[in-house]
Formats: sequence, C-alpha cells, structure tokens
Amino acid sequence: MIADDAFYTSHARTIDWVPGPDGSLASGHIQLIDQTLLPGQTVLLDITDVPTLIDAICRLSVRGAPALGVAGAMGVALAALDSPEQLAAEQIAALRHARPTAVNLALGVDIAAAALTTGGPEAALQAALKVRDDDIAACEQMAERAVTLLTELTGGKPRLTIMTICNTGALAAVEHGTALGVIELLHQRGQLELAIPLETRPLLQGARLTAWELTRMGAPFRLIVDSAAASILARGGIDAVLIGADRIAANGDSANKIGSFALSLAARHAGVPFLVIAPETTIDRDTARGAAIEIEDRGSAEVANFHGVRTAPEGTQAINPAFDVTPAELITAIVTNARVIRPDHGQQPADPM
Amino acid sequence: MIADDAFYTSHARTIDWVPGPDGSLASGHIQLIDQTLLPGQTVLLDITDVPTLIDAICRLSVRGAPALGVAGAMGVALAALDSPEQLAAEQIAALRHARPTAVNLALGVDIAAAALTTGGPEAALQAALKVRDDDIAACEQMAERAVTLLTELTGGKPRLTIMTICNTGALAAVEHGTALGVIELLHQRGQLELAIPLETRPLLQGARLTAWELTRMGAPFRLIVDSAAASILARGGIDAVLIGADRIAANGDSANKIGSFALSLAARHAGVPFLVIAPETTIDRDTARGAAIEIEDRGSAEVANFHGVRTAPEGTQAINPAFDVTPAELITAIVTNARVIRPDHGQQPADPM
Repeated sequence: MIADDAFYTSHARTIDWVPGPDGSLASGHIQLIDQTLLPGQTVLLDITDVPTLIDAICRLSVRGAPALGVAGAMGVALAALDSPEQLAAEQIAALRHARPTAVNLALGVDIAAAALTTGGPEAALQAALKVRDDDIAACEQMAERAVTLLTELTGGKPRLTIMTICNTGALAAVEHGTALGVIELLHQRGQLELAIPLETRPLLQGARLTAWELTRMGAPFRLIVDSAAASILARGGIDAVLIGADRIAANGDSANKIGSFALSLAARHAGVPFLVIAPETTIDRDTARGAAIEIEDRGSAEVANFHGVRTAPEGTQAINPAFDVTPAELITAIVTNARVIRPDHGQQPADPM
Repeated sequence: MIADDAFYTSHARTIDWVPGPDGSLASGHIQLIDQTLLPGQTVLLDITDVPTLIDAICRLSVRGAPALGVAGAMGVALAALDSPEQLAAEQIAALRHARPTAVNLALGVDIAAAALTTGGPEAALQAALKVRDDDIAACEQMAERAVTLLTELTGGKPRLTIMTICNTGALAAVEHGTALGVIELLHQRGQLELAIPLETRPLLQGARLTAWELTRMGAPFRLIVDSAAASILARGGIDAVLIGADRIAANGDSANKIGSFALSLAARHAGVPFLVIAPETTIDRDTARGAAIEIEDRGSAEVANFHGVRTAPEGTQAINPAFDVTPAELITAIVTNARVIRPDHGQQPADPM
C-alpha cells in the first residue's frame, strides 16, 4: 500500500514496468494501482503473468483506454519473456480480446507482438516501454492543445467550469490523463473555476476515481449523479463538456463510457461545446462508423448491486452496456496529441493529417 | 412487518387512515409503508403526530406526489384531532412546506385545512379520506386513458416495451400508481412486452421500489442505470417513455424526478413518444412556466454515499437537485384523470377542459 498522496507527489504511475530482483528490466514485471479499491485504499499490484493481467483487466483493476494500451503491450512482453513460444502466443491472443470496446488494448498488443516477431522478447519489452512513454507524451500534448482550443471557444474566459464523465485522469493513462488531464492543466494554470464530474454508474469511476484525483490535485469540484447533468447544463454556467474515448470511428463517432451519448444530447440542447480528448491511437480507421463498434455488456450484477449491497430485488435482470456511441454530429471537436478535428466544421478523423 | 406479497394480494395501501382502539376513525391515525426499507423489508409505520409525519416525509418514508397529497391532508386531520388550535395551525404550516417541489403536498394540506376551517376536525378528516379515495379513482382513470392513447400512438401494436423513471407505482400513490399504474394495466391485459425502469440515482427508487413492484406484479422487466437510457432508446424497440410528475406548470412544463429531462431529450432524439401521467391535482395553474418551479436540493450525502457505503472521497461536495423540469415542447402528451393534453398539438394544461 502507498500513501494516498504519493500518487501525485511522487509521480507514481498508474501502470509501469518495474525491474526484477537482479535490477534488470528483462526479469521485471508489471506494477499497477488496483483501481477497484479506490478511493478507500491505494494498493499496488505486482503482476508477473498474463492470466493474472487478464483477470485484472476484466475486474477493472486497470481500465481506461490509454492504460489498457500499455497493459496490452506490457502483457505481450511478460508472455514473451516468461513463457514458451506456443503458450505465449495463446496468452497474447487471449489478452488481445480481454475487453472488446477500447481499441488501445488490441493496438498495444499488436505493437508489442510485431516487435516480438521481428526482434524477440527484448524488442517486445522495448516496444511496450515505448507505448508507455508515448502515452505520457501524448497526454501532455493533448492537454496543451485542448487548453488552447478552450480559450478560443470561450473567447478567452479566464476561469472555466468543466463537466466530465467517468475517469479520464492519470488513473486511465500513465502519468496524466486525457480529458481530466486537460482539467488538471487548467487547474495548474489557475484557469479552473470548477470541475463537475458525473459519478458514472454502475461502477462509479467518476465518484471513486475522478473525485479522488481532483481531491489530490486540490482542484475545486462538485460531484453529481449522471442524470443531473442535463438540467445542470440547461441552467447555464458550464463552459464545456470534456470526455475521453475508447474507440473513435473514421467518421468521428466516438465510443466512450455509458452516459456519454446522453451527455452529448444535453450539451447540444444547452449549446455547450462537447469535446472528445483522446490520443491518435484511439482512432480506429478500420471502423467506418460508430454502429460497427462492439459494445461490451457487463451483465446484471453491476446494476443490481453496489459494493456488495443489493440495490434491487433478488433475481432482477439488467441491461448493462458499458459504453455508448456519441455520433460525430454531436461532437464539437476531437482533440488528439497531433491535431484538432472539428466535426462541427465538417472534418473527420479519416481526413489526411 | 407484513409479508412481501401482502401489498399486492391484499390491496394493502401505501398510505391509509386506520381506526383507533375504540374502532372510531376520529381516534385513528396514519399508517404507511416505510419506503426507505424496501426492497429488503416491508414495514408499516403508525404515525400519530405531525412532527413524526414531517420527519417521514423528509426522510422519504412516504414519497410520490399523489401519496404526498394524501399524507398532507391526513396530517391536517391528525393535527386538528389531536392538538390545541394554535399548535395545530403551526403544525399545518410546517407540514405544508416539508418538501417544496410536489404541488400535491401543499394542495392536500390546503383541501383539509379549508374543511377544518368550515367544518372542524371531523370535516378535515372526511376531506382527507376523500383525497385518498379521489387518488384511487384518478389513478384508475389515468391508466385507462393512457392505455387507449398508447394503442393509438403505436398503431395498435399488441405488446409494448415501456421505459420509465423513478417510482410512480402504488408506492407513489395509494392503491395503483400513475405511470407505473399504466404499465400495470398493460401487464394485466397481456399487452406488456417489457418494462425498462431506470434505477434513478441517488436514492434508487427505480431499483428499490419500481423493480420491487414489477416483481410483485410478475411483470417482465430489465433494470438499467440512468445514463444507459439514451443509448437503449437510440437502439430502437422502445414504444414509449412514461413518467409521473411532481408539478405541472400552466404551459405544460413538468417537474419530475431528476433525470426526467435527460430522458425526454433522449426520447426526442430517438423519436419515441414521451408521456407524463399525473392527476389533474398535479397541474399548478398558478405557475406559468417550469422556470418558476422551486427545485429541492437535497445536499451532498445522498450523492457521496449509498446505503451507508461511501462512494466518493471524504469531504466530497455535490450538487444534488432532486427534480428537473421537462419543457412542454419535449412532451408528447400529458394524461390526467380527466383528459389528454397534447403539447405536440399545441395544447396546454391551462386550456379550458
């Protein structure tokens, strides 16, 4: 267990590769914060084999598209360094499909697996470390670009009130987040009036993780239930809605945490800019439109229970899509580490850069 | 404690006036189901004084606009029968303002208080019993009228899938509900394909109360988190969204449980009819527009906790409006016990009946 503040003060990473007992990276393993225990406990998990990693991904100990990309790439390195070739191949295939919606998981696996094919286990590990470093750099670039865009969209308003859903912070990435990384940068520059995170049922990533990160940052925030977003937007006073993404189709349709689509409808009704903040790696050029994105259904238990407390009568069945798709026409801008794409100006991710 | 099934099999009432030990109504008191303990326990509370009734209303042991109307009227009878005149007047004033948004509470108080002024305590009690009986009749009339309208709106489709929010069933009224009363009637007639209740954070009236009522009815249903409604509507297959109301302005703007406005935006986007089911008594002709309706804010604890389990870091502050206002232009029809008002045809509640 690490102290609550260590995460921000020591720049501890959400997920990282730590050296082995002999000090070499090749004998190392994955270390990640167990997000299922937050905000109550800050526990680091040491993961030394792929089945344990897949379990951690399915239980959402590690989640968030960028962090899943790093997990996927590092998982390939684990498999390659520790397992015979045939077993490693099976583990890599299973890891690639541990969760279906976030494109970054499969992409991270593919990058490290390609390096493995051409250069062997050490090359796979180097590729995984590069996925990690690229994510750190991409989040910083996105935040800078998004703050510039927000300044433009709000006519240079000095302090902004920003609504956001799920957790898109450091916990969803490595060192800094996507949408919450933008809010963090605004706060560091004295430009954040208030953050309004949605609690994000059923797993409450907004209440458990985003509120925890905002508290650690010392940023001003007010938590709301998901269904209050529309009327709070309609009241006025919100300058922008910022979300992350798990997969962005070639036309700009964006899959993200369940509730994002509802939030985009509410933002449009209120005339508030709606921004998707995600790295270029989240853009899936092979998927033409959002309708083709597979949406994970996570079953009834998450809806009918909360932290072991039953919320609905015994036997209650649920419909529990973990994600939804916001159509491009409801998105003001997609901000990546490389560019700003403006669906509202007819641009789409498939356009040449 | 009563057996779980007694509520539906014996037509036990959500709220009623029970005779005193001598068998007379004048020595009687209020009995109501403690809704904070559902679905775990079915407990009847005996309420013999107004301060206890106000506490039960504020804790939401009794809630739902029609049930609050009955509680308000019966509370006046309690005060009049048991307290000296001056104290009774103070208690009646406090009761009238126990919760601000539902018009029925104040209206129920006013009806019984008027009877008290003209006819004394016995007349107040008779007026309260009439509020109860009128509610029972009104819910039956609304259900019949709404089923007829749904048949018309869906072109006579034999089995309907209906989405609803919060609890608008027997537990929100006396014997049968408003919106959920319509779903109950569809089910009784073999016309219900599926009910899709929203869980309704923060207090989970959908998961705790509506799912409990649907289970008791034997009606097919699937529970969803509030933020999943928009994408499930967009998928297609939902025939109508039905909600209740706490106060309907003269122009048709309707205050209801937080999340109703978001749901109306999603229904409009999906082209699904959006119906408000409420008695004529919920129409407040003195309020011209929704913007004038006072919205209760219930503080941070309900959002940052669930059933005693903390969901957000210590010290987290929330914005927690208990209701929102759906503008009339997003409502297909308002169905009352007396008429169908079609905002989509330019009609409004203030029109002559």
